[in-house]
Amino acid sequence: MATLDELPLRPELRGRTPYGAPQVPATHRLNTNENPYPLPPELLGDLAKALEQAAVTLNRYPDRDAIELRTELARYLTRTTGQPLEAREVWAANGSNEVLQEILQAFGGAGRSALGFTPSYSMHPIIAAGTGTGWADGHRRDDFTIDAAAAAAQVRALRPDVVFVTSPNNPTGTAVALETIRAIYDATTYDDGAGVVVVDEAYAEFARAGTPSALTLLPGRPRLIVSRTMSKAFGMAGLRLGYLAADAAVVDALQLVRLPYHLSSLTQAAALTALAHTDALLATVDAVKAQRDRIVAALPALGLTSVPSDANFVLFGHFADAHAAWQALLDRGVLVRDVGLPGWLRVTAGTAEETTAFLMALAAVRAELGDAR
Amino acid sequence: MATLDELPLRPELRGRTPYGAPQVPATHRLNTNENPYPLPPELLGDLAKALEQAAVTLNRYPDRDAIELRTELARYLTRTTGQPLEAREVWAANGSNEVLQEILQAFGGAGRSALGFTPSYSMHPIIAAGTGTGWADGHRRDDFTIDAAAAAAQVRALRPDVVFVTSPNNPTGTAVALETIRAIYDATTYDDGAGVVVVDEAYAEFARAGTPSALTLLPGRPRLIVSRTMSKAFGMAGLRLGYLAADAAVVDALQLVRLPYHLSSLTQAAALTALAHTDALLATVDAVKAQRDRIVAALPALGLTSVPSDANFVLFGHFADAHAAWQALLDRGVLVRDVGLPGWLRVTAGTAEETTAFLMALAAVRAELGDAR
Repeated sequence: MATLDELPLRPELRGRTPYGAPQVPATHRLNTNENPYPLPPELLGDLAKALEQAAVTLNRYPDRDAIELRTELARYLTRTTGQPLEAREVWAANGSNEVLQEILQAFGGAGRSALGFTPSYSMHPIIAAGTGTGWADGHRRDDFTIDAAAAAAQVRALRPDVVFVTSPNNPTGTAVALETIRAIYDATTYDDGAGVVVVDEAYAEFARAGTPSALTLLPGRPRLIVSRTMSKAFGMAGLRLGYLAADAAVVDALQLVRLPYHLSSLTQAAALTALAHTDALLATVDAVKAQRDRIVAALPALGLTSVPSDANFVLFGHFADAHAAWQALLDRGVLVRDVGLPGWLRVTAGTAEETTAFLMALAAVRAELGDAR
Repeated sequence: MATLDELPLRPELRGRTPYGAPQVPATHRLNTNENPYPLPPELLGDLAKALEQAAVTLNRYPDRDAIELRTELARYLTRTTGQPLEAREVWAANGSNEVLQEILQAFGGAGRSALGFTPSYSMHPIIAAGTGTGWADGHRRDDFTIDAAAAAAQVRALRPDVVFVTSPNNPTGTAVALETIRAIYDATTYDDGAGVVVVDEAYAEFARAGTPSALTLLPGRPRLIVSRTMSKAFGMAGLRLGYLAADAAVVDALQLVRLPYHLSSLTQAAALTALAHTDALLATVDAVKAQRDRIVAALPALGLTSVPSDANFVLFGHFADAHAAWQALLDRGVLVRDVGLPGWLRVTAGTAEETTAFLMALAAVRAELGDAR
């Protein structure tokens, strides 16, 4: 075996390590924001039938444009957000990561730059690097919210080609106010061009009541893109189905960089089947939100606090040594995520049993380490 | 809807159209080199079971490193080519297009360049463009073969970071001699760096007897990469499973740019199941090769000729007006591919019935147009 140093790897990749949560054995895996609920039995039955059927023509290429799937995704978004959308305004790919990569291939890339308000989804700068797009870190307030005026000023100063806004934000959990997104969008018109604004709504279905989707901002904003995923609320992380809604011209642009036949026949069939079971799937969302709120409510008694969460996870702290707390929780069988924010850890809201296990472990860790501050 | 001109699209994408064969209704679709044989019943039964099982844990992320799948792919390559390979020397993605894109993200990209010997697989320059990699067209002889010395000289002159060699070549069909690949590889050592050589073996299983795989060249060549697909010989174009074999350091490099969890649980389960049925699947390869050879043998009586084929398709001609012949065949229900080579068309070798329909239509077209030259 050669070493990486012997290969003509791009210089900016040297010394990097592959992205991914540590895959550590643990009784309770609360580190990757998966939905802990297995799919409902009636969906599993329909999935088995749909996949068996799709396998029959597996020797043929899939529908290159995934028209039926995009039609049903548009219908789902229309129904749940009130924003009328059609198939030509929706695009899907293998996970929202691939959706975001295609956006950067079309609107970012070499000689162009992206801005994201860190801490945020750590794949945004990684996908930027993978597409040769420059990256700039945006500002957040100490409470991790975005100041609309400061963000707009930063956009005007840096003139990024792509701006990422994660709402609800990951790993902090809070949704971004629509007026903030509006202000950022308005700032992306430059005297010699313009930028696109990507609102990453991977966790949107978990938002607290009264939190509107950025999809409602799409009319009249052709450079606004809202991405979603079936990994979280739909409980289908293993399916790898991400999608977006935007002006149909954006979808046309992405088709210039998408790999042909990128979505397998099995992926399309399974996603379509799941969309026919939307109500049953989204029933787990309320259960997860109840556990999230239970975590949030239990923290003060442990001398801890949290960042307001519109997601299926909670950023909690403050620890003198977050990594020591992470290890102590793992020692008790509970795997949470050390997201690299000093003092904070992120826990996925799961089943009631998982929440109980987490809160008991956390109480024991607090008693042992006593290091909240 | 906005227009593309109103969006800040990368300038080099302006005016392009999405890649893809025209999706035209036709009785006999012989234009995308699909395997016409449906999957064997016993495989369909096992697939149904495996997919039903995989669906149960679809709420969890897939194995990020696809270890089991890569192990079985390595076993398949070892068994069929005699070249011992392990999982750490194999990488898989959603179609060989994604494999190639990852290679260009790691070893190509902005400020770097790729060389391919056109006419060849038309996605190579498109993926290069999508990753910001420069592109140069390599020379072929008039019979579409590559002259080893000329190719090596061109590599030494252009110093590309990535060289693509398609073997068997698409759309012309002929396999590339190993000594040519060796000469090209030897030429990719420059005084200030080196390039990687990608041998795209999408059609390798259809090669005529005695054609060794470039996999046998891997030992001692850490910058050689051989890509494969399950779309053709395995008859699973709808599955989207491409893979490669290379030095384990190359696989490490690709993990720096791969999107995490890129291969769905369903894809991994279906591919693993298919690999357990390799012998039954590859039985169709001999049937397809027989039809290919039948097409080749029938052409001279029609006043036509072909390029020697090691693939599941035949490049045939010579027509005064290939596009008129394409249309005349389509008018008779047979869809072949106009690959843009003046005088030539490409037809997929399918079932005996498809071949008969194609040859009858071709005879009628020849009688009508009489334009071979």
